[in-house]
Amino acid sequence: MLRRLEGQGETAGRGVSLPEVHRVTERENGDLGYMFYPRSVAVAGASNRAGFSPGRRFVAALVRSGFGGGVYPLNSTGGEVEGLKAYTSILDVPEPLDHVISSIPAAGTPQLMRDSIAKGVKVVHLFTAGFSETGTEEGRRLEAEILSIARKGGIRIVGPNGMGLLCPESGLSFFTTALALKGSVGLLSQSGGNAQELIHAATLEGLGFNKVVSYGNAADLNETDYLEFLASDSSTEIIAGYIEGVRDGGRFPRVLARAAQKKPVILLKGGRTAAGGRAASSHTGSLAGSRAVWQALCRQTGAIDVRNLEEIVDLIKTFTYLSLPRGRNVGVVGLGGGRSVLSSDDCEGAGLNVPQFPEETRRSLSEMIPEAGTSVRNPIDSAPVVVQNLELFARTLGLVARSEVIDFLMVFLYAEVPMYADNPALLQGHVDTVMKAAPTLGKPVVLVLGTGGAEWIAKEVHEARETCLRAGFPIFSSVESAARAISRYIGYHEDRDGRK
Amino acid sequence: MLRRLEGQGETAGRGVSLPEVHRVTERENGDLGYMFYPRSVAVAGASNRAGFSPGRRFVAALVRSGFGGGVYPLNSTGGEVEGLKAYTSILDVPEPLDHVISSIPAAGTPQLMRDSIAKGVKVVHLFTAGFSETGTEEGRRLEAEILSIARKGGIRIVGPNGMGLLCPESGLSFFTTALALKGSVGLLSQSGGNAQELIHAATLEGLGFNKVVSYGNAADLNETDYLEFLASDSSTEIIAGYIEGVRDGGRFPRVLARAAQKKPVILLKGGRTAAGGRAASSHTGSLAGSRAVWQALCRQTGAIDVRNLEEIVDLIKTFTYLSLPRGRNVGVVGLGGGRSVLSSDDCEGAGLNVPQFPEETRRSLSEMIPEAGTSVRNPIDSAPVVVQNLELFARTLGLVARSEVIDFLMVFLYAEVPMYADNPALLQGHVDTVMKAAPTLGKPVVLVLGTGGAEWIAKEVHEARETCLRAGFPIFSSVESAARAISRYIGYHEDRDGRK
Repeated sequence: MLRRLEGQGETAGRGVSLPEVHRVTERENGDLGYMFYPRSVAVAGASNRAGFSPGRRFVAALVRSGFGGGVYPLNSTGGEVEGLKAYTSILDVPEPLDHVISSIPAAGTPQLMRDSIAKGVKVVHLFTAGFSETGTEEGRRLEAEILSIARKGGIRIVGPNGMGLLCPESGLSFFTTALALKGSVGLLSQSGGNAQELIHAATLEGLGFNKVVSYGNAADLNETDYLEFLASDSSTEIIAGYIEGVRDGGRFPRVLARAAQKKPVILLKGGRTAAGGRAASSHTGSLAGSRAVWQALCRQTGAIDVRNLEEIVDLIKTFTYLSLPRGRNVGVVGLGGGRSVLSSDDCEGAGLNVPQFPEETRRSLSEMIPEAGTSVRNPIDSAPVVVQNLELFARTLGLVARSEVIDFLMVFLYAEVPMYADNPALLQGHVDTVMKAAPTLGKPVVLVLGTGGAEWIAKEVHEARETCLRAGFPIFSSVESAARAISRYIGYHEDRDGRK
Repeated sequence: MLRRLEGQGETAGRGVSLPEVHRVTERENGDLGYMFYPRSVAVAGASNRAGFSPGRRFVAALVRSGFGGGVYPLNSTGGEVEGLKAYTSILDVPEPLDHVISSIPAAGTPQLMRDSIAKGVKVVHLFTAGFSETGTEEGRRLEAEILSIARKGGIRIVGPNGMGLLCPESGLSFFTTALALKGSVGLLSQSGGNAQELIHAATLEGLGFNKVVSYGNAADLNETDYLEFLASDSSTEIIAGYIEGVRDGGRFPRVLARAAQKKPVILLKGGRTAAGGRAASSHTGSLAGSRAVWQALCRQTGAIDVRNLEEIVDLIKTFTYLSLPRGRNVGVVGLGGGRSVLSSDDCEGAGLNVPQFPEETRRSLSEMIPEAGTSVRNPIDSAPVVVQNLELFARTLGLVARSEVIDFLMVFLYAEVPMYADNPALLQGHVDTVMKAAPTLGKPVVLVLGTGGAEWIAKEVHEARETCLRAGFPIFSSVESAARAISRYIGYHEDRDGRK
């Protein structure tokens, strides 16, 4: 089960190195799924003293997420932590132990590793920092020591310096601000904070996870190992990742190409600039590599290279909720001539097309909306008479959808306009109309609900979003972000079909 | 006072045409300031029947914004509108009339123009659409007719097909969802909806306007006229604009260059793509011209070319609230290693530098924050011990500011992290600490407060933002948007200095 140690020193910490594929030694990690379904978990460093204790937070997270097996706090004094009996040694835990989470100081981790091996533990997750990322000789030595202990003892390390594993199905969890939903996304993140933020943002959108790993310094298992596993994991349908440095630059390109052929792989690269690379080095001891090489790698493999965390969530949402449009031609319906112009620019700027409706569609629209006159070419700049009348609004959607030149519809609403100031309830009316019409239109539909965050419409915006989320209906906060995500979504499939 | 009619037919509706500067005939508009300070206003088409009446909305807007002069609703039946006596003809208004706002159908506007001239009106603003933007012969003919009437009668037209004029100082106003604050921004917008959105967004940020014009089809006065006026207007310190098509392609480049030399000119071009250009044509009858020509024009003149409405507000905020940094070197302080990496990428990607702190600064930081160890290079990834202790947090800011390599500071906080979930009040503590420290640091400071919109921290986020707004402290919603705005701000001054 253990990978070979040869070559580790050569590839660790290197940037992506495309031409080295032939020098790669295959790993033999097998199925890492067992790591996410431990029978029992011990948490070392779970203090019951006042003040911040990461270990106690892990215990609380396991309780909150409904972990089904035994949870054993460990500390130097015993007592109770979060209502659970605490032990002073792993060896005292009164049942077989599969997983250990550690937040004890780095200097104590070699002994923790040895105790874990003696207890028959399978995985040690080191939340503990203070290893190679410090840039010190002592940090590097300690990281090498725990890795050596793990290899000899046949035990795996997650981290160090990461949040570890999360699996809503088993209840294994690190601490998060939002309780992760069960879903189909596999997430690998070198950063714990970014993993927490992604989980929070995805949860607000109703998007769930299957398996998450925040792997920090990647001393043992690294990005390539987790990616390979998630690619083969049948319950993972979408892979998302935040990667600062590729440890296994030889294997990574091939594993990435295979993964992207199987399922969408959405990746954010941290350390794209010189300063970002220096920060990545401080953060997880990564050598970040150049942006150009990374972009080339994504192009060559079919992985989706994104620019920020928000875009990861936009893409997960698109892949999860939107049926694949048959092409890039979007019919845009909204309110406001200026916003229509900017929406067209945003759509075409993102690589979509906004074709003019044929004469027949325009005539039908003009007959229905005599005032509209000039605004029926695409986008439809809906006249007040239409948007104030939900039946006319629904008929507009129908006419647009029937046009042969259109592959999918985008409806944009901006919350802070006089129309909604007059009648805030109309916002929900529009959203309901779109959602009710969508299944009858025969083409995918996305909704954009823009908001500047004004308090006077906040409740209605929140309710409208909730309505969409409950129904699994794709809703975005700007035309720009929607267009960008949908274009990538279509591009992923075009690209994959092209490789077949 | 009237511009010459020659050449109007040649330039109207053309795209930007850089080489034609020599063919320009100078206008003689003089000072347009009087347009924003009428003694009295009549609103034609202010119905008192049930249902939506734009005219009645204009009357209500004038009342709400505290317009000091007479307000006279006009309709076909008389009666009262918004508590004001309505008249059936302009000629019946019982005092001298300076300004008329019209929302009557297009076909009635020639007579309205003639009545206005007979009454001695100075400016007619036509909210009314149905002119050249329809693309019909009749629409073009009507627009030419009203222009001809205006020329002969010595009266100016704003519009048609625009929201008209707004001036918080005089109380002249169109309808908005947020009551515009009095300030130093002059805004010209071809779109009424985009003007409304910009006013709304700016008001949420505490930013005010001096003069706003939404000029639609620009039949009479166009973008070049308004720009020239705002450039010479001493109470306008910042010019912002949304332009779909340049009507006066000959004069525009030179007027823009002169304006940008005097004060910042922030411009968003609608119709940058083929589809956007078609939408602009439907919207305001504009021929949009190519993106490349527009970008070249902005580069050559020193105008600031932005991508969306949000960026306009970000730049107004930056120019209004941030002291000019002496250079592009930013010291970044935040929480989270992954976010630090991404922040560095965002800053350098926007054209800022994130230099490493010198050894001396790093030693001081390490002594103060023994845990931090590796995260003191820049960005400072503040250890929990620091961010939980406001005094240590303030000392960190002081140490960073004292570093010679830093020109300004950026502090980033993300609201939806476990730290604030534990202790939401800490967010305000951090914001207060930054604001209290800022005046003592001797260098500009910006704050980034990122939020995904979760309800559990919404109140604290709102209060933190309000604290900043009340103090005129620059706060942004993402490192990316802050970095981009500040880089443009510095670039504007570098560029202007270079031209001197």
